[in-house]
Amino acid sequence: MHEISEWYGEVVERAGLAEHSPVRGCMTIKPYGWALWENIQRPLDEAFKATGHQNAYFPLFIPLSFLAKEAQHVEGFAQECAVVTHYRIQTDSISKTVAPDPEAQLEEPLVVRPTSETIIWHAFKNWIHSYRDLPLLINQWANVVRWEKRPRLFLRTAEFLWQEGHTAHATAEEAMAEARQMLEIYADFVQRYLAIPVVKGRKTPTERFAGAVETFTIETLLIDGKALQAGTSHFLGQNFAKAFDVQFLNKENQLEYVWATSWGVSTRLIGATILSHGDEKGLVLPPYVAPIQIVVIPIWRNEEERTSVVEQAFTLAKALQQKGIRVKVDDDPQHRPGWKFNEWELRGVPIRVALGPRDLEAQTVELAWRHTGEKTTHPQDDLVRQAQSWLERIQVALYERAKARIDKQTYRVDSYPEMKEILESKGGFVLAHWDGTSETELAIKEETGATIRCIPLEAPLEEGTCVYTGRPSTQRVLFAKAY
Amino acid sequence: MHEISEWYGEVVERAGLAEHSPVRGCMTIKPYGWALWENIQRPLDEAFKATGHQNAYFPLFIPLSFLAKEAQHVEGFAQECAVVTHYRIQTDSISKTVAPDPEAQLEEPLVVRPTSETIIWHAFKNWIHSYRDLPLLINQWANVVRWEKRPRLFLRTAEFLWQEGHTAHATAEEAMAEARQMLEIYADFVQRYLAIPVVKGRKTPTERFAGAVETFTIETLLIDGKALQAGTSHFLGQNFAKAFDVQFLNKENQLEYVWATSWGVSTRLIGATILSHGDEKGLVLPPYVAPIQIVVIPIWRNEEERTSVVEQAFTLAKALQQKGIRVKVDDDPQHRPGWKFNEWELRGVPIRVALGPRDLEAQTVELAWRHTGEKTTHPQDDLVRQAQSWLERIQVALYERAKARIDKQTYRVDSYPEMKEILESKGGFVLAHWDGTSETELAIKEETGATIRCIPLEAPLEEGTCVYTGRPSTQRVLFAKAY
Repeated sequence: MHEISEWYGEVVERAGLAEHSPVRGCMTIKPYGWALWENIQRPLDEAFKATGHQNAYFPLFIPLSFLAKEAQHVEGFAQECAVVTHYRIQTDSISKTVAPDPEAQLEEPLVVRPTSETIIWHAFKNWIHSYRDLPLLINQWANVVRWEKRPRLFLRTAEFLWQEGHTAHATAEEAMAEARQMLEIYADFVQRYLAIPVVKGRKTPTERFAGAVETFTIETLLIDGKALQAGTSHFLGQNFAKAFDVQFLNKENQLEYVWATSWGVSTRLIGATILSHGDEKGLVLPPYVAPIQIVVIPIWRNEEERTSVVEQAFTLAKALQQKGIRVKVDDDPQHRPGWKFNEWELRGVPIRVALGPRDLEAQTVELAWRHTGEKTTHPQDDLVRQAQSWLERIQVALYERAKARIDKQTYRVDSYPEMKEILESKGGFVLAHWDGTSETELAIKEETGATIRCIPLEAPLEEGTCVYTGRPSTQRVLFAKAY
Repeated sequence: MHEISEWYGEVVERAGLAEHSPVRGCMTIKPYGWALWENIQRPLDEAFKATGHQNAYFPLFIPLSFLAKEAQHVEGFAQECAVVTHYRIQTDSISKTVAPDPEAQLEEPLVVRPTSETIIWHAFKNWIHSYRDLPLLINQWANVVRWEKRPRLFLRTAEFLWQEGHTAHATAEEAMAEARQMLEIYADFVQRYLAIPVVKGRKTPTERFAGAVETFTIETLLIDGKALQAGTSHFLGQNFAKAFDVQFLNKENQLEYVWATSWGVSTRLIGATILSHGDEKGLVLPPYVAPIQIVVIPIWRNEEERTSVVEQAFTLAKALQQKGIRVKVDDDPQHRPGWKFNEWELRGVPIRVALGPRDLEAQTVELAWRHTGEKTTHPQDDLVRQAQSWLERIQVALYERAKARIDKQTYRVDSYPEMKEILESKGGFVLAHWDGTSETELAIKEETGATIRCIPLEAPLEEGTCVYTGRPSTQRVLFAKAY
């Protein structure tokens, strides 16, 4: 597992996805990584809009006193806040050093948003007056900051990019339905677009979002056997409405507190994608989100051959583009084909097309399939005609392969020694009975390092006894060591 | 002019574009305002990509010492920086108040980016080694923070959203061509999509971006007679390359400092749009960026009529949507048609369609044209068939109207008393001769409040004498009071 961690850091940087910045914990997302993020944002944004949500934008800064209004919330985030205390810097004219200007100290310090519930619910107070203003369905694409002790690119960074949905409803039922709907949208997106199988579930009270009544989550298992929370959707009850005094006149003309949800996914999804499909050669990107779906590499030995293969490479690329495929021709004369093969394998392009003089004659192309390493030869016409369905097929194959891997790494366990053994030696998901208490949950966490990732929504009810205490239990829950 | 200022604030809030937040100087962009921003971002992003630029993302935080590396740069931004000094907050268990944790003070304070040249050039040092790495054409969509003493929604806010392009080139000529190209892209976008006429020009040394060798700008004149800088593109010479030691091996295998540009437009463009076309009834939005291009308002007196007009309203809306038009049916039973007419006028929707029982019979619709207030009746078929070309026509009409207004408010002036008189009584653009010195520029600024907005690129050379000193001049420059 340590090897995978090193592999991960190296692949992220060498493939040009992201790099560490001089500010501890903050990353620079490079063009290739950003293109991947854009391909994640687009379908998500469409799914939000198709379900009636509107985008808006709230301030980066939150007054310190706002955070304190919801007691659990501030406790959850106090440890990891970036605090702005000054609004001017000054240069020392002799030493030429710069420092915050002591005369420009803010009366009230500002926190760089770690999440926006408080600033948004402050605004909602003025936006919501009557049942006619509900539901209020808002989403924001933004950067947030949570100080991290052990940062890892994409998976855990001080600044990260995400979307955060914040909705207000007239009834608890409607808010709960919204929280569940967004969980489904996340699960569907992550499974269909990122080819990452997930388990949908509820968090235990210990693992809930700070300020939530119920937290739903999608959890996946990565190639190193560790679990990753890929997205969460919270039913917030009336906690924030009460903290910010947001009431509405119902149809009976009575004042009631509104009901709330919030939900988010982040650039962490990029980390999840890398660690779900990658192999020893580097990234393996799902076609739906790959910035480049097909790379065409012309191969030549002399100038004359070069002219004709490069020309045909661009002709094919254009035909593919017209079919809506993201394609690149790598005709860089600085590098040899072998170097390019490695490079585009490292960068995870689903299909590589090699085109040499002999292919020109035979009107064929040689394809290399990134996810299997297989090579096949096809008529050029077939490439153009079938590329789209080939990409679809790869997308499905990646999902199925990941599913098989996770199924294999999911263990139904009935004794605590067995559970410890598996968590220690193999990692993976462990389905075990639990007595439902936080004490047991924390004891297991301390002894094994594993947490309850979720109480699965779709698992059958089943009589059993807690692996730790032997007390009765009605459902297995999902344990794992996690990011 | 004071009235327009009040009108502006009221329209921005009442039309649901944005509002002030509890953090001084920061705004909340509401859904309608955000939809407008998305319609601005999309074509700009396409134009950047079409010219070979790639998006990336750099950290929000900049180490204080980075800012200091380029002397002019830090001087330009020191006055308006938000400074992060702590990474944790603590709750006082007795008073329940929160404060920065004194034990969690950062060794080096961080500045919330006011612009990203320094952090980006720090990264470029590792991205650029040889001429083969050039040109490097990067763009970032991001939030930035510049403390503002007199904030105004969209026009001048502490936090604002923008894009900032940062490019690196092998030669001065190529960097200069890039800076000029981006100016053209900005001018084209602002004129075509926002229907705002601009004057392209160079800034005087006093008005240049802090760290630039040459700043190009597009300037417009708003309905209150004040000028607004709508976008800037900077040729940075080798200033940042030298400050961050970014050199490349040229084709002759010699090390050279690279040449740079940066360029940006921001949410300020929304303010410019409002203050270019608005009238006493509220917003007048150019069709190309209007979140809603056509609003259909069904009119009924009883339940029976309601069913049929609402049904037909949605049928028309669907037909319009299929033509790619952004359309909304307002069938809200809570409000009367008159209220809706006012509301959608306030919100600047280009075409309003009223549809009553009599229209149903005659298969007609009544159109109200927001930019002229005119009403016309048309067969329903014509609406669907011609709506797209009507919207195009409105787009052009708005541009032409704004152009005529600005032409009328542009004065060629040859004496200083006349210049003062005009600036004092009417505002507007003043084209006058200037002797080319900063002393004269500053003296005029102090006495009249007007600055040199730019030295127009397309103005003819013309012998003359400086209005202030009588010294010789070869070209008129553009003076105005500005935002």
